[in-house]
Amino acid sequence: MVSATTELHPLDPLTSSEIETAINIVKKAHGDVFYNVVSLHEPRKAEMSKWLEDTAAPKPTRIADVVVIAKGGKVYDGLVDLKDGKITKWELLDGLQPIITMEELVAVEHVCRKDPKVIEQCEISGIPKEDMHKVYCDPWTIGFDERHGNKVRLQQALMYYRPNVDDCQYQYPLDFCPIYDADKEEIVAIDIPKVRRPLSKAPAINYHPAAVEKAGGYRQDLKPINITQPEGVSFKMTGREIEWQSWKFHIGFNYREGIVLNNISYNENGTVRPIFYRLSLAEMVVPYGNPEHPHQRKHAFDLGEYGAGYMTNSLSLGCDCKGSIHYLDAEFPSRNGGIRTIKNAICIHEEDAGILFKHTDFRDESSIVTRARKLIIQQVFTAANYEYAIQWIFHQDGTIQPEIKLTGILNTYSMNPGEDTHGWGTQVYPGVNAHNHQHLFCLRVDPNVDGPNNTVFVSDAVPSDAPVGSPENFYGNAFYAKRTKLSTTGESKTDYEGKTVRTWEICNTNKPHPVSGKAASYKLISREVPPLLPKEGSLVWKRAGFARHAVQVTKYSDDQLWPAGRHVPQTSGEPSLGLPEWIGDGTESIDNTDIVLWHTFGVVHIPSPEDFPVMPVEPITLLLKPRNFFSNNPVMNVPPSYASTPSQVAAGNAGVYDATDKISKLAFTNGTNGTNGSCCASNGANGH
Amino acid sequence: MVSATTELHPLDPLTSSEIETAINIVKKAHGDVFYNVVSLHEPRKAEMSKWLEDTAAPKPTRIADVVVIAKGGKVYDGLVDLKDGKITKWELLDGLQPIITMEELVAVEHVCRKDPKVIEQCEISGIPKEDMHKVYCDPWTIGFDERHGNKVRLQQALMYYRPNVDDCQYQYPLDFCPIYDADKEEIVAIDIPKVRRPLSKAPAINYHPAAVEKAGGYRQDLKPINITQPEGVSFKMTGREIEWQSWKFHIGFNYREGIVLNNISYNENGTVRPIFYRLSLAEMVVPYGNPEHPHQRKHAFDLGEYGAGYMTNSLSLGCDCKGSIHYLDAEFPSRNGGIRTIKNAICIHEEDAGILFKHTDFRDESSIVTRARKLIIQQVFTAANYEYAIQWIFHQDGTIQPEIKLTGILNTYSMNPGEDTHGWGTQVYPGVNAHNHQHLFCLRVDPNVDGPNNTVFVSDAVPSDAPVGSPENFYGNAFYAKRTKLSTTGESKTDYEGKTVRTWEICNTNKPHPVSGKAASYKLISREVPPLLPKEGSLVWKRAGFARHAVQVTKYSDDQLWPAGRHVPQTSGEPSLGLPEWIGDGTESIDNTDIVLWHTFGVVHIPSPEDFPVMPVEPITLLLKPRNFFSNNPVMNVPPSYASTPSQVAAGNAGVYDATDKISKLAFTNGTNGTNGSCCASNGANGH
Repeated sequence: MVSATTELHPLDPLTSSEIETAINIVKKAHGDVFYNVVSLHEPRKAEMSKWLEDTAAPKPTRIADVVVIAKGGKVYDGLVDLKDGKITKWELLDGLQPIITMEELVAVEHVCRKDPKVIEQCEISGIPKEDMHKVYCDPWTIGFDERHGNKVRLQQALMYYRPNVDDCQYQYPLDFCPIYDADKEEIVAIDIPKVRRPLSKAPAINYHPAAVEKAGGYRQDLKPINITQPEGVSFKMTGREIEWQSWKFHIGFNYREGIVLNNISYNENGTVRPIFYRLSLAEMVVPYGNPEHPHQRKHAFDLGEYGAGYMTNSLSLGCDCKGSIHYLDAEFPSRNGGIRTIKNAICIHEEDAGILFKHTDFRDESSIVTRARKLIIQQVFTAANYEYAIQWIFHQDGTIQPEIKLTGILNTYSMNPGEDTHGWGTQVYPGVNAHNHQHLFCLRVDPNVDGPNNTVFVSDAVPSDAPVGSPENFYGNAFYAKRTKLSTTGESKTDYEGKTVRTWEICNTNKPHPVSGKAASYKLISREVPPLLPKEGSLVWKRAGFARHAVQVTKYSDDQLWPAGRHVPQTSGEPSLGLPEWIGDGTESIDNTDIVLWHTFGVVHIPSPEDFPVMPVEPITLLLKPRNFFSNNPVMNVPPSYASTPSQVAAGNAGVYDATDKISKLAFTNGTNGTNGSCCASNGANGH
Repeated sequence: MVSATTELHPLDPLTSSEIETAINIVKKAHGDVFYNVVSLHEPRKAEMSKWLEDTAAPKPTRIADVVVIAKGGKVYDGLVDLKDGKITKWELLDGLQPIITMEELVAVEHVCRKDPKVIEQCEISGIPKEDMHKVYCDPWTIGFDERHGNKVRLQQALMYYRPNVDDCQYQYPLDFCPIYDADKEEIVAIDIPKVRRPLSKAPAINYHPAAVEKAGGYRQDLKPINITQPEGVSFKMTGREIEWQSWKFHIGFNYREGIVLNNISYNENGTVRPIFYRLSLAEMVVPYGNPEHPHQRKHAFDLGEYGAGYMTNSLSLGCDCKGSIHYLDAEFPSRNGGIRTIKNAICIHEEDAGILFKHTDFRDESSIVTRARKLIIQQVFTAANYEYAIQWIFHQDGTIQPEIKLTGILNTYSMNPGEDTHGWGTQVYPGVNAHNHQHLFCLRVDPNVDGPNNTVFVSDAVPSDAPVGSPENFYGNAFYAKRTKLSTTGESKTDYEGKTVRTWEICNTNKPHPVSGKAASYKLISREVPPLLPKEGSLVWKRAGFARHAVQVTKYSDDQLWPAGRHVPQTSGEPSLGLPEWIGDGTESIDNTDIVLWHTFGVVHIPSPEDFPVMPVEPITLLLKPRNFFSNNPVMNVPPSYASTPSQVAAGNAGVYDATDKISKLAFTNGTNGTNGSCCASNGANGH
C-alpha cells in the first residue's frame, strides 16, 4: 500500500519546485551561474530528533544547499531558506572545486575532437584527422595534479577510439591525456608519455547482440523463471517512509551519496527499537596501482567527485528489477538552472530468501521450517566505465546487509605488443592493459542503538592465555571474545584482523540485555576489508584519509557527512580534508555519546580476461547484525511453511501447521519437463 | 529434461539392491553383524580418468565399502566386489570406532531413563523419578576421553528435560553427563561436576505455533511471493549427471560427506574445459571453548562421526524448496541389515540471481542489461541440535560458490542464577548457558584445472617496496599481486592474511592464457577463515589436524578422502590421523602434479539471545572463481533483457534488443497494491 502525503518529511529530497524556488532566488540575487548542487541541507540533528520523537515539536525548515560556479570559475557555497525565500549564506570559496556534473562530463569530448594538438596526437597514434569523430574521451576530474593545483577547474580526458560507432571503446585506448580547463572550455595541456603506444590493431571484440550473433549466437537453453506477488507486496509506503516486517525507515536520496536511509527502527512486539539515525555510503575511492605517470591521477572519488545520485541509472521494470517493484524518482538541478529528473532512480522490492530457520527432532521427525523474505532498496550508478549496483538488504531478523555488485567495464590503457606490464596490470585483450586497482567504499553509520549514546568496541576471538595442560585450560580448548572499548577518536582507528576474525560492536552500554547482561548492540561483520594499498604519505593516502583504516569513529557533529571533504575534486590532501580533520589529535571522547562510525571496505581488483570487455558482477557484502539487542529470536512469529510437534506426530500428524507453498512443483514428471508435482507431507530427517 | 538410464555411472551411490547384495554376501560369510557403513568404494582415479576420457575403456567395477561391528564390539573394514560377489578385504580393526549411526543415536535415551544412577542424578537435579519420561538426551559419541580410550565404543549423553513433551529441551539442560557403552548397552559412568546446577525453573519458551499464538500470534503482513517456471527448468538430468548453462557434472552422495560433485567441467563455445575432478565437504569440527570438564569433549566431527548423508533431511517441496524442484533420493543400509531410504535427500533448482552484467554509455544512454541465473544443489542435515543447509551454487560465469547456512538450536548447558560464565559462554535465556564455539568445515578440492597437473599459489595484494617519492613509486600508489608457489606439502600449510586479502590460486602452469600470459586458474576467495582457536597441542588440535591451517595441499592419492581419518569417533589425536599423516615431514612435491587442496573455513560463534530458542540462519560462503581461464567474459552469450547500441539510439531505438520480463509489475497503482505495471523502455543513466 502506498499513501500519498501532501506534507514533506524533513529528510525528503528537495522537490523539483523547491529546486526551482532556490534557483530563482539565487538567479535574482546573483544572475546567471552554473548550478553544481541544489540539494537538501539536512536539518540539525538536535532539532530533527525532537521532531521525530514528537511531531508536535517545531518541524525543521526546508533549506537548500547550493553550490554554483559563476563566471571566471568563482565557486560559491550557499544556503537558501525556502520558507523565508532568503539566502542565508553565500560564501566565495578559494581553491575548492565542486562536484563534476553530467553536463561537464559530456562537454569535453567535443572540444577534444576539435583541438589541433589532440588531433596531432591522434595522428601520431595512427588515427587520421578525418576520423576524429571516432575518438572519444572519459573526462574525469583531474583528481589532483601538483603542476596544476586547484584554483582552475580541470578535467583529464582518458582517450579512446571506436572503429565503428558501436564498438566498445575500452579496447582501443590512446596513450596521451589532454587536460581540459572547464572555465576556458579548452585543452590547456596534454600529458604525453615517454614511451609511445600507438592505436591497437586488434580486431574488435564486443558484447552487443550483433557481435554475439556473429560469434555463434545466444544461449538457447534458458527457460523463463517468473516471480509474482498476486496479492501485492508486503511493504507499505507513506511518502518516502517504508514499513516492512517490523522495520520502519525513511528513504532519502541525494546527488552524491545516492540512497540515504534515515531513522531506522524495528518494532519488537509493539516496542519501537531505534537502531540507526542515518546510514549511507558517504564516499568511495578507486585507486589504481600503476606508478607510471600519469596513472597516479586515477583514483576517482566516485561519490564526492561525481555523485552516486547524479550518475544513477533510470531503472527498468523487468530488466534491472524483476517481480513486483516500487520506484522512487530523483530530481536534480541541471547545470544551467533547469530540472533533471531521473525516473525510477530507486527500486524497492522483496524476495524470497530461502530458509529462515529450521529444526527437526531426530527422534520423531517433529519439525519446523520457516522461509525467509528480504527487502531490497536498490540503485545502480554508472561512473563512466564502471557500474555499481548498490543494494540495501533488510532481513526479518533485524540484520541489515549492504551489498554492492561491481559490473560495467574495466578502466584500460594501451600497451605495445609483447610489452611487460611489470605486474602493475594485465593484458586482458591484445593491446589492452587493465591496471590493478581497489574499490574502497566508506559506510557512514550514525547509530542510534536503543538510543543516541553509543560506544564502539572491537571484538576479537582469541584463545585463553592459559597454556595447554594448565588447570585453567587443561585440554587447551578455551577461547572467548576479547572486547576493547574505543574511548577516543584516536583509539578508534582500527583495522581488520583476520587472525581474530575481528568484528566491531556498536553498543548501548546503558542498555544491558536483561538476560545475557551484555550491552545491546549492532555488530559490524565485514570480511572484505583490504587495507589502503597506496602507502602512507602517498597522494591517495593524503586525499582519502577515510580509507586509512577499516573503522574510524567520530563524535557526532552536524555537517560531518562526507569524509574526504565537502568539495573533493582537485583537493591536494595537504591538509587531508574530512575525517582526518575531524579526528585531529585523536583525544576527543567517543565513550557513551552520540557518535558516527566510518567503515571502509571493498576489494582489490587484479584484472583478468574474464572481466573483459564487460565484467560479470563481483559481489561485496557486509552485515550489521543485532546481538544482545532483542529479547530472543525476533522471527519466531514469521509464519512457518510447516510445523509439527512431538505430540502431533504421535497423534499421526493431526493438527500440524501446514502452509506449504502449493505453487512449487517437481521439475520433471515421468521423464518430461513436468508441471504437476506432489507435495511431500513428511518433513523429517528420515523420510518415509 | 530427465533421462532414465539403466546403466549406473561408476560414481553413482550404491543402489538399494547393491547394498542388499553386499549385505547378503557379508551375512553369508560372517553371520549377524551391525552395519555401520555399506557405501560406494570409489574407483581408483587412474582407471576412472581413463573411462571418463573414453567410455570404451574398461568401466570401473562396483565395489562396496563395508564397516561392521560384530559381537563383542569387534570392528571390521571390508570391501565387497559386487560383480564377482566376493569379499576382497576383511580386516579386524583395533582401537578404531566407526561412524555413529542414527539407530545408535536413538538407542541411548531409553537406557538413560531406566538407569538407576541416572535417575538418582535427575532427582538431585529436581526431577522426580516418575518424570523420567520427560528426560531426554542427545547421545553424542564421547569424542575422546583419555580415561576411557577407544577400545570400547562409548557415547556421552548430553542431558535435557522437557516439562511438556512439546517443549524445546535445550532450555532445560541437566548438569551431569552419563557415559554409555554401546556394546553392553548400558551406562558405565556418569561425569558429575563439582559445582551442581539444578534444573532451571524458568518458564518455557518455545517456537511452535501454539507458543507463538499465545505470545501474540503470527505476523499478518506477509503477502505471498510465487516462483514458477511455466516452460520447465533449464537443467537436464541424465541419471545423476546434470547439464546446465555450459556446466556439466555428476552428483554423488555418500553417508558422511553428503553431496559429492564429480567431474565438473564447463563447455566454452564447444570446448569442454575440465575444472574439478571432485569437490565436497570432507570433514568438519565444532570445538567448544569452555575449558571446564567435560566440555572439552564437545567438538563434534559432524561428517566423520555422524555423517552428512546419514543425518540428511528429507526435503519438502514448497517448504525447504520453492519453485520448480528436482529431487534425488538417498539409500543407506540400516544398522540391522535392511535398507533406509531418505526421499528427497538432495534438491536441485535454479533461481534468478539479479543483474549478471550491465553497462550504460553516459553519452547517449545506449545500454545493455543481462540478468543472471544460478543453479543450486542443496541438502540440509540435522546434527542433533544444529541444522546445516549446504548449498552448492553454480554461476553462469564459471564461478562455484559453496554456501552453508547454520540454523537449528544452540548447544546449551545449565547455569545457576547469577552465575558468572567467565566469558566462556552467554546466558541466552534464564538458566541457559550457550558456550562459545566454532564451526569449521573442510572443503576438499581435487582440481583438474584444464588438466590433472596443477600447482597452488598464494596471492597477496601488496604495496610496492619502493618508497613514496622514489623514481619507481613517486606518488606512492604502486601495488601488485605477489604470488608465492607452494612447492611442497610442508610449504602448503598457509593461513589467511587479512592485510593482503590473501587468496589461493589453483593453476595449470602448462596452460598460460594466450592473452594475459598468466596460468589458467581457479581462485579460492574465502573470507570466513578463523584460525583454529584451540591451541597447538590441545585435544582438538591433535584430532582435527585439518583445521590447523586455512589451506593444506597434498599429492593426490586414492583413498585420501577424509582428513581427520577414516574412522573418527574416539580417535585420540596421537597420532593425528588423516591430513597430518599424509603430509608427514612435508617434503613431498606438489608442484605441477595431481594434487588435492584442503581448505578449512567457518565461523566463531559467540552466542547471543537472538540465537535462542532457535537460530535464524547465519550464512557462510566462499567462491571458486575462474581467472585467466576463459578467453574473455564467458557470459556475453547469455540473452540480455535489453540491449541498445549507439547507432540504434541515434535511429530512435529502432532495432533494439528487448526481452524485458513482461511479468514484472509495479507494486502499486494509484495508491492501491497494484497489479498492472508499465515497462519502461528507457534504460539510461538520465531517464526520460
